[in-house]
Amino acid sequence: MMNYLKIKTPTLIVDKSRCINNIKMMAEKAAKSGCTLRPHFKTHQSIEVGRWYKDLGVKSITVSSVNMAEQFASEWDDITIAFPVNILEIDSINKISENISLNLLGESVESLNYLKSNLQHNTGIFIKIDVGYHRTGISPENTQLIDKITKIIKDSDKLEFKGFIAHSGHTYKCENKDEIIKIHENSLNILTNLKNRYVSSYPDIIASLGDTPAFSISDNFTGIDEFRPGNFAYYDLVQESLGSCNENQIAVAAACPIVSIHKNRNEIVVYGGGVHLSKEFLTDSAYGKIYGKIVSLNSNGIGDTIKDMYVNSVSQEHGIVSVPSDSIDSYSVGDILYILPVHSCMTANLLRDIIIL
Amino acid sequence: MMNYLKIKTPTLIVDKSRCINNIKMMAEKAAKSGCTLRPHFKTHQSIEVGRWYKDLGVKSITVSSVNMAEQFASEWDDITIAFPVNILEIDSINKISENISLNLLGESVESLNYLKSNLQHNTGIFIKIDVGYHRTGISPENTQLIDKITKIIKDSDKLEFKGFIAHSGHTYKCENKDEIIKIHENSLNILTNLKNRYVSSYPDIIASLGDTPAFSISDNFTGIDEFRPGNFAYYDLVQESLGSCNENQIAVAAACPIVSIHKNRNEIVVYGGGVHLSKEFLTDSAYGKIYGKIVSLNSNGIGDTIKDMYVNSVSQEHGIVSVPSDSIDSYSVGDILYILPVHSCMTANLLRDIIIL
Repeated sequence: MMNYLKIKTPTLIVDKSRCINNIKMMAEKAAKSGCTLRPHFKTHQSIEVGRWYKDLGVKSITVSSVNMAEQFASEWDDITIAFPVNILEIDSINKISENISLNLLGESVESLNYLKSNLQHNTGIFIKIDVGYHRTGISPENTQLIDKITKIIKDSDKLEFKGFIAHSGHTYKCENKDEIIKIHENSLNILTNLKNRYVSSYPDIIASLGDTPAFSISDNFTGIDEFRPGNFAYYDLVQESLGSCNENQIAVAAACPIVSIHKNRNEIVVYGGGVHLSKEFLTDSAYGKIYGKIVSLNSNGIGDTIKDMYVNSVSQEHGIVSVPSDSIDSYSVGDILYILPVHSCMTANLLRDIIIL
Repeated sequence: MMNYLKIKTPTLIVDKSRCINNIKMMAEKAAKSGCTLRPHFKTHQSIEVGRWYKDLGVKSITVSSVNMAEQFASEWDDITIAFPVNILEIDSINKISENISLNLLGESVESLNYLKSNLQHNTGIFIKIDVGYHRTGISPENTQLIDKITKIIKDSDKLEFKGFIAHSGHTYKCENKDEIIKIHENSLNILTNLKNRYVSSYPDIIASLGDTPAFSISDNFTGIDEFRPGNFAYYDLVQESLGSCNENQIAVAAACPIVSIHKNRNEIVVYGGGVHLSKEFLTDSAYGKIYGKIVSLNSNGIGDTIKDMYVNSVSQEHGIVSVPSDSIDSYSVGDILYILPVHSCMTANLLRDIIIL
């Protein structure tokens, strides 16, 4: 593995052509369904990658923290913070909404009352619905609570009811595509019913949904208005294992220097551990726990995975790579290994300096 | 939980008195054994926490990356980078060793030959020995390789042989204290034998060992010259589960704002997920997978853990906390929960802004 990129420390490599193909695929799906694409930027957290979306006509984005909204507000004037509003950050929220269209997520009377009293500028509110993931959000049956919240919004001169938002995160636990589709159809139904119930009183409300597994696999988006997945721009080994993508759609790899080679146990030690890749792992049927797979890299971008080469463990700075005995002699200390991440959002969050191919 | 610290986003709280007690305990153990304490600073990565060591007479430190060595070289003039040397960072290494005493870890002929040709200033070399963890290092039986490396060092005018260094990381997988002690005694024997074999040719060499479980539990350090653990300054739930500490020695907690409360399932959602706590978990006998335990906080520092309150899952920004049904009514959105981390090194790496109590 030649080090022609002059990499010295763990660095994220982004394959621009794969990434743009992934973005185009999702943008076309959204267009075909008459939906807006409001991609989640927590995956890449990169101003430059964000511009690739802009070039394809995307006008609005999703982030997962006030801090990320601040970061992207320089280039984007329509941002949804898809996380239950953290009222302690009210000052930053007011600063952002002074300049751009900002949407927040509400799911409690307490938070909404706080916002009503403390917001200084017009701010959109999506009501977060729990479509079965049970991480957060209001149960769709709890229309009593939804009514209370819509009333607070209506009584405020700053709050604007934007509609219902959901994330089917339970698709990540599915065993096969049928299970993913089943969850997705259920989420579509829930959002459609809620929108139908409230649309006569609030004619402009929309339904927003987004998770990469279902949005990659399904072609049915009946009843929703907005696509909100994010991971699909990069994809990763988790998505590949779910059937959302194949390996050659994964658009990022962590470049890690080889620091030691142990031929007696067919292992290479790389500078690239839990503080670079994250400690997220996948249980592979052939290899057991894996923290990444090794790929080749060529001047055009990321190549194929190298058979039987994977990260078998990580500690803080070390990654331990299993290597076939018949190829270990071809590696030297100072070479670079390129690692497809298990969860690209986590790896991209840790490796902020990126190299674009 | 009052928010008297004015916390707005996930922040690491350091209990100074607990931390200093932990440092004193280890410094006294080292002194009693006639050893130098060269603590590992990858745990805290904080200039300020580093000064607490300095105040107690510590003069030399350990780090796990060139980058960390650069960071601490402003305050410390004797640093060991306890990671197989990354030859791609030779320019930074030469810059650091221009001003301070720097020690690197060598374990291959290739790396040592590279250093011999490219180092610009005198630099110490510890030979890394694999005492059974099998992450990296030279097998102690492989004296042929050790001889080759010492010869390269001897033939160089820049390299200085400092001795043997090891990390018994396999103590982290032990089921009980007896197993930890057994591994520790074996590591002491290995290093003693190696030092005895080479000390007549190199009278100034030392043996350096360090892992928090064994160094917390054992009182026998016969044969070694240097203590190199790091985690003990903060400790964490992993160490508590190994018997290295008890809960009230854990000196850090992640302060996380409550953003949602779900009374129907006795769960609180905090702003504090995998990008703050890390995704490292512990399998608790009572609760299953846990990503942290909730503690009280008082003006003096970290208090006791709150019974049956723990982080049951994390995603990128969300932490989901299980809460007893009889106390969930006492929490409100905007309150702060304080979370003892599973692995303090990983959490401290993610939460760089600290508040010292």
